[in-house]
Amino acid sequence: MTFVSASITAFFSTKITYSPESSGSYGVGFTIDRGVKARLTEKHGVYYNGEKVEFPTVEHVLKKLGADGVELESNVPISAGFGVSGASALATAIEISVCRGLNYSLGDLADMAHEAEVLNLTGLGDVVTQYNGGVVARIEAGKPTKAIVLKFPFRAEFKFLAMGKLLTKEVLRDELKRDAINKTGKLMLKEFLKKPSVENLVSLSKEFALKTGLADDDVRDAIEAVESAGGKAGMAMLGKTVFALNAGDALDEFRGEKFKARVTLCGISV
Amino acid sequence: MTFVSASITAFFSTKITYSPESSGSYGVGFTIDRGVKARLTEKHGVYYNGEKVEFPTVEHVLKKLGADGVELESNVPISAGFGVSGASALATAIEISVCRGLNYSLGDLADMAHEAEVLNLTGLGDVVTQYNGGVVARIEAGKPTKAIVLKFPFRAEFKFLAMGKLLTKEVLRDELKRDAINKTGKLMLKEFLKKPSVENLVSLSKEFALKTGLADDDVRDAIEAVESAGGKAGMAMLGKTVFALNAGDALDEFRGEKFKARVTLCGISV
Repeated sequence: MTFVSASITAFFSTKITYSPESSGSYGVGFTIDRGVKARLTEKHGVYYNGEKVEFPTVEHVLKKLGADGVELESNVPISAGFGVSGASALATAIEISVCRGLNYSLGDLADMAHEAEVLNLTGLGDVVTQYNGGVVARIEAGKPTKAIVLKFPFRAEFKFLAMGKLLTKEVLRDELKRDAINKTGKLMLKEFLKKPSVENLVSLSKEFALKTGLADDDVRDAIEAVESAGGKAGMAMLGKTVFALNAGDALDEFRGEKFKARVTLCGISV
Repeated sequence: MTFVSASITAFFSTKITYSPESSGSYGVGFTIDRGVKARLTEKHGVYYNGEKVEFPTVEHVLKKLGADGVELESNVPISAGFGVSGASALATAIEISVCRGLNYSLGDLADMAHEAEVLNLTGLGDVVTQYNGGVVARIEAGKPTKAIVLKFPFRAEFKFLAMGKLLTKEVLRDELKRDAINKTGKLMLKEFLKKPSVENLVSLSKEFALKTGLADDDVRDAIEAVESAGGKAGMAMLGKTVFALNAGDALDEFRGEKFKARVTLCGISV
């Protein structure tokens, strides 16, 4: 069984080129102590929390490594900004390599998972974050073995409120939105690197969510409720999900999936 | 509290230059689920498992980051090939940065711990292994942010038998020994990269220990006992320590500290 952490992106800007190797994103994301477990199965296809699903990103990895099927178990919601597709693809790749004695390097497996994400437009930076683990600033975009990152050892616990889906694919296909994201994301990264603290990370995430228009009324309401209680909150990219520091019980009144999770430096365990 | 994994080097070759930044080692090492915990204290100096000790490598870090004292708790033996000095220096650096909100990147803290190791001749590659986590092949030597590595996700549990100390400092100061180490270490790395499996790692470690003369009679006896039982064993560099795969009870008859540990991809937790 291989576990790969969920990855939460606080803000980002995209770099989409002719090839998955150089495509990726800039920005800051972090791994938490929740995520996706993968186990090989003799059944054909992808099983997600017990149900057979279509999951092209994971199917790409199965095909590349010549495996039939995988069972995924996740304790974070899908399409809600937790990098489930990246975690699923990476966990699947590692589990196949380990179980079959293929002895790939972790970098090669991460590059493969990243390729699967880019080709299917399910993510651009999650695998880089998951491969590195921790609070990861992506300062040069690209596949995991080429991306340049700075990682920070923050000790923090967040409350999460997942209120619904936002499809990465749809946001990334909207050119106007992508322009706003790219402009604002670059600025936020610069600001974060001036003062790389957990509080600053959350504040910049909120600023990014508001300036790009990615935060809808529900997200804005939740962030405001946390701030009224003396905490800070940002938005997980890309999902209708709020993550909060010192939220007290401010998020209790909101509808959605709620849980706590700690930032971890460990993105992967086998 | 910050935890940093013990690091076991299977084989290595040295690169010692005029500066700690470019000094380091080539070779393969791995992190395990045992190691060193660091906690800041108001007392002055370094406390190791409850006793005040002289520990120049850690004192270097305390001074660099302006802290007075640290309490270290270790569940692996010192000077026995577990990279305790590197783990102690790195855990201390991270703990100071996290507790004081200094917000250093993990790379900067690891470079600092590496510098402390090189200046005190207590290690050359452990911090690089601990910074990366997992089974780490160091293919270009240097400080953690400059070293080039390949990491492998091996699923393995080893039995360890620690029979006594070998001072890194003394081995590294002996030029004849260093020549044998460098020649053999380079060859072993090449062989490992041709077939990067856990079995090959252990076999090459044994070959390295024998060819360099670092294995004494006790180490050779223990390795042979494991092989007679159908397992494989290598030697932790630098310590009078044997690590074994599928050892059965072959090591039970030997005197020394014995324990099991799993290879982990997580070098650090905060």
